Amino acid sequence: MKPVDPKTASAEVKAVFEDIKTSRKVKSVNNFWRYLANEPRMLRHTWESLKSIMGPGHLDPLTKELVYVAISITNNCEYCMASHTAAARAKGATDAQINELYAVVGLANMTNRLANAYKVPVDEQFKNAT
Amino acid sequence: MKPVDPKTASAEVKAVFEDIKTSRKVKSVNNFWRYLANEPRMLRHTWESLKSIMGPGHLDPLTKELVYVAISITNNCEYCMASHTAAARAKGATDAQINELYAVVGLANMTNRLANAYKVPVDEQFKNAT
Amino acid sequence: MKPVDPKTASAEVKAVFEDIKTSRKVKSVNNFWRYLANEPRMLRHTWESLKSIMGPGHLDPLTKELVYVAISITNNCEYCMASHTAAARAKGATDAQINELYAVVGLANMTNRLANAYKVPVDEQFKNAT
Amino acid sequence: MKPVDPKTASAEVKAVFEDIKTSRKVKSVNNFWRYLANEPRMLRHTWESLKSIMGPGHLDPLTKELVYVAISITNNCEYCMASHTAAARAKGATDAQINELYAVVGLANMTNRLANAYKVPVDEQFKNAT
Amino acid sequence: MKPVDPKTASAEVKAVFEDIKTSRKVKSVNNFWRYLANEPRMLRHTWESLKSIMGPGHLDPLTKELVYVAISITNNCEYCMASHTAAARAKGATDAQINELYAVVGLANMTNRLANAYKVPVDEQFKNAT
Amino acid sequence: MKPVDPKTASAEVKAVFEDIKTSRKVKSVNNFWRYLANEPRMLRHTWESLKSIMGPGHLDPLTKELVYVAISITNNCEYCMASHTAAARAKGATDAQINELYAVVGLANMTNRLANAYKVPVDEQFKNAT
Repeated sequence: MKPVDPKTASAEVKAVFEDIKTSRKVKSVNNFWRYLANEPRMLRHTWESLKSIMGPGHLDPLTKELVYVAISITNNCEYCMASHTAAARAKGATDAQINELYAVVGLANMTNRLANAYKVPVDEQFKNAT
Repeated sequence: MKPVDPKTASAEVKAVFEDIKTSRKVKSVNNFWRYLANEPRMLRHTWESLKSIMGPGHLDPLTKELVYVAISITNNCEYCMASHTAAARAKGATDAQINELYAVVGLANMTNRLANAYKVPVDEQFKNAT
Repeated sequence: MKPVDPKTASAEVKAVFEDIKTSRKVKSVNNFWRYLANEPRMLRHTWESLKSIMGPGHLDPLTKELVYVAISITNNCEYCMASHTAAARAKGATDAQINELYAVVGLANMTNRLANAYKVPVDEQFKNAT
Repeated sequence: MKPVDPKTASAEVKAVFEDIKTSRKVKSVNNFWRYLANEPRMLRHTWESLKSIMGPGHLDPLTKELVYVAISITNNCEYCMASHTAAARAKGATDAQINELYAVVGLANMTNRLANAYKVPVDEQFKNAT
Repeated sequence: MKPVDPKTASAEVKAVFEDIKTSRKVKSVNNFWRYLANEPRMLRHTWESLKSIMGPGHLDPLTKELVYVAISITNNCEYCMASHTAAARAKGATDAQINELYAVVGLANMTNRLANAYKVPVDEQFKNAT
Repeated sequence: MKPVDPKTASAEVKAVFEDIKTSRKVKSVNNFWRYLANEPRMLRHTWESLKSIMGPGHLDPLTKELVYVAISITNNCEYCMASHTAAARAKGATDAQINELYAVVGLANMTNRLANAYKVPVDEQFKNAT
């Protein structure tokens, strides 16, 4: 698949591209959206979801970017690690915070397997948490 | 494997259990630690790492718990979801925040695969972020 | 590990290579089989299984290739994405179909985590489906 | 989290629930949507995406359900396996097809790891496939 | 899917069941094989592969069972953890060894993510190892 | 993130680097540790854990390296595959053993999904194994 050129894109794709640029106050859309534009419906749904959930809400935007980075490392998505770490930095993340985040990601992946290996039963006091 | 009973635990295990109780200001250690105590070296290393990284540092403790929950969902670790959601709530997470977190987790797992499927090349401006 | 050269391969490996070429009506075996030939037993078992299951059966061959692509994206196997997308195209998959497939893969990875996050109980009417 | 009761749901949630029932010609919404309704924005985005992509498009609906089942097995999402296997059966999948699907899922997860273990380079003829 | 009853199984399935019982010197086949028998081709291929690779070879049988347990924990397959831990014990694994194995599994899952997070380049001296 | 230069590292990092060199009888620390040194606490915890668990214990060191390789393949961590395969070779692993290991990794990833797909119930005789 090739990235879609904003100049020759369909009206439907162009509209999403314009909304991305306006909403994010950027001059061009990055590669992710240009490739995703090969499936215009999915471009629109993905953008609408991200704009809504990653924008102002109940968690602060930096926290949400850090969560995104953590999952992208766990899933080994290089593009996502790069783009969301850049977004986290743009929202104020420091080197020290990113390094600590990596540590948390490592530990969570470790204790996830230890809990599963031992088939640890959920403690009574945690049962109503989720 | 059976959980280790604090009363009959070895001195090495007891010392870690006591440190957990003192550090966390709790009266008993939860199941995770009692099962992990079957491998006393790993009990100690895991506790030392978590105490150090999940405690005061560069990211606020609630953010770190939310990252933990996000990874535990991605890896499908039921125990970890329950215990870290409980910890997040104890640190102030609201229902609205947890619901938004779930949304971010879903979206990240989706866009991770879309980026990989399209083999999206990392944009120039993101290359120095990580 | 180096790929096994068909010219200098053992008789056991050569026999599998010949069967691959005959069955698939191709002139040379691709890299996957040449590397796997380093473990001749596994070469044979993997080939026998794939020949049997991916050939004529209960699902049409294109559907099976698309399933293969979907899993390869989810597991982030670049070689498998390339080879099975090529196979899907050879069996008639269009650009529009592949783009829609990517969308389904993204959505499934998203809703898988949402269902696990909420620990959604299986509805009565679905219980006998699997 | 508790499932949202359709009777006491907000107008925003009720509207999605009604659209699900109308679009799918069912009398009640299943558990997935009732839990997801705890985050009304995500309920709407997920439903809009699924309605659009899983409905009429470039791949036949049964193929898309089978892909969904395959990914759900790979990710170990029990709810998703049950609900999408039920959907696949409703769209005509036979026992023999589902059993063959399971075989493909197993094989793909095996060869994904073999390709990664051997770091198999992508063959020239596959390079333009994705 | 229901497990296949050995008494009413097809001749093809019965032959595999008998080979399992003879090869393993057991009186009945366990659940995994009885369910897999719903797809007789896959039953045969899976059994032939496992019999060949998990039997006498280049690695000792206990090592191979421990590897199996480690992967089953990483993938969170409860059935596989139980059956291969039982097999490891039957081949001599002690409690202390299984606990140490769990520790290795935890650490590997941690360092895998740390290496990916930091995008650590492969050292020159490791480049010819794989 | 850049690798930490041992010459200009903090005293805390230098101490860990020296311990790595002494314990492993090597002249320089490899890339993994130099990148991890960006988070000195995590460097120390990871090193202490690995030194303790991967050293003399209940399983022989080669077995533990092979388990590490198997998990690294399953998780698709290229650095970890390279470094732990090198370590396995240094501890005596032959080409034949590594090839057989790859076969086991493939099979385990396959049967893990088959067991999950069929939701195979754990046999009575396996229930006390874990």
